Amino acid sequence: MIRVVLIGTGNVSYHLCKAFEASNAVDIVQIYNRSLESFKDFPEHIPKTVLLDELMDADVYVVAISDKGIKEITYNLPFENKLVIHTSGSTGLKAIHSKNNAGVLYPLQTFSKSKTVDFSEVPIFIEAKNETDLKSVTALAEVLSKDIHIINSEQRRALHMAAVFTCNFVNHLYAIGHEICDANDLPFDVLKPLIQETTEKIQSLSPKEAQTGPAKRGDQKTIKKHIKSLENKDWKKIYKLLSKSIKETHEQKL
Amino acid sequence: MIRVVLIGTGNVSYHLCKAFEASNAVDIVQIYNRSLESFKDFPEHIPKTVLLDELMDADVYVVAISDKGIKEITYNLPFENKLVIHTSGSTGLKAIHSKNNAGVLYPLQTFSKSKTVDFSEVPIFIEAKNETDLKSVTALAEVLSKDIHIINSEQRRALHMAAVFTCNFVNHLYAIGHEICDANDLPFDVLKPLIQETTEKIQSLSPKEAQTGPAKRGDQKTIKKHIKSLENKDWKKIYKLLSKSIKETHEQKL
Repeated sequence: MIRVVLIGTGNVSYHLCKAFEASNAVDIVQIYNRSLESFKDFPEHIPKTVLLDELMDADVYVVAISDKGIKEITYNLPFENKLVIHTSGSTGLKAIHSKNNAGVLYPLQTFSKSKTVDFSEVPIFIEAKNETDLKSVTALAEVLSKDIHIINSEQRRALHMAAVFTCNFVNHLYAIGHEICDANDLPFDVLKPLIQETTEKIQSLSPKEAQTGPAKRGDQKTIKKHIKSLENKDWKKIYKLLSKSIKETHEQKL
Repeated sequence: MIRVVLIGTGNVSYHLCKAFEASNAVDIVQIYNRSLESFKDFPEHIPKTVLLDELMDADVYVVAISDKGIKEITYNLPFENKLVIHTSGSTGLKAIHSKNNAGVLYPLQTFSKSKTVDFSEVPIFIEAKNETDLKSVTALAEVLSKDIHIINSEQRRALHMAAVFTCNFVNHLYAIGHEICDANDLPFDVLKPLIQETTEKIQSLSPKEAQTGPAKRGDQKTIKKHIKSLENKDWKKIYKLLSKSIKETHEQKL
């Protein structure tokens, strides 16, 4: 049984808690957060605290808070020589204060509290300072998923950046599509088969091979018409810039 | 039996041909293209021509060519009072020369010759000048799909624009993710569960509710780190612009 203290109550912590609770291999001994309010999303039976001094003994302390807080909170931990891991894509291993052993367990997924996730399919990227800690991090990762990769901090930062493009930015383009539909009395649902197919296509083709649309075809007339009819200035810029980038990728210089 | 002449041999024509061939309700009497070369992708038994003067008699002429050619080719058709339809998202009904009856059958999907598509699930958007023609276009659309919508040219243009954002631009972001992975010795496959979940999420949440990531969280530190480490100038601009647009959508002013 791996005894875990969860630090933080955001989306990642919420889904880690669910996945650990569903396994017999992990015991969540405590959840810490600096304020009380989000404890309500977590199971009642797990002890909770808002004070670092009250942290209980555990095998692993999982710091699942926003990136900017990792350095400070690990500095303030009131113990030494324990295994402390964070779950951030863009934060190096070194952000964890050296008084404790350090590891990273980065689950590559988009987590919202209102949407369940099958953790067993989530790729997990791990890192640790030494072999012993890597074994402990691996053991914890194996509780969560079948798909575990050992990578360094530099690769993880690149991966997180790729995830921002292919998930966060993609979702924002969905949001723009949603607003365009709303403004023209069209249900957003009509775009869903297209969105689905766009994702499925890259299972069998590379994204470069799968590219279609006015910019790929070099259809300047349509591009100009679209840019003209967009009222939102940012969307206009996004349209121009992405069309230019598609054209350059496909070497159809203007 | 609806007798159809297909004009054009691009991706849309290719998939329309496949879907019509699979049904018993349509007879493709001929395929026209201005050059011979792409006829090889189409069934041998269908008559083909490169001369408009050789076009055979049919109930519907389906013009599935690039947008910029629609006006000219329908002007040059050597007959009158026939039903001529185009398949373009961004071209008005009026682009079809008035000597013939006009209709639109716009299938909202991303078509590549190397990827099969289940046409029965593709939403089709139709338009025609009068009720009689609308009936004929509806009959043809019903051969292809269960999901048919009547919309006007203005709505269709908006829909096509939304499709550019949610399909063509999304795919380009996948291509950027692919390149970032390649440059860092990471297999693109590790991003696929995330890409899949990003799409699935908007089945149950609105894109605005589903948004996650550094820009949504207002995590300036990570945003700056990412922008600094991107070498491609266009990608840098894309990162900045989309982050700004996400921030503004979620009303987290800087």
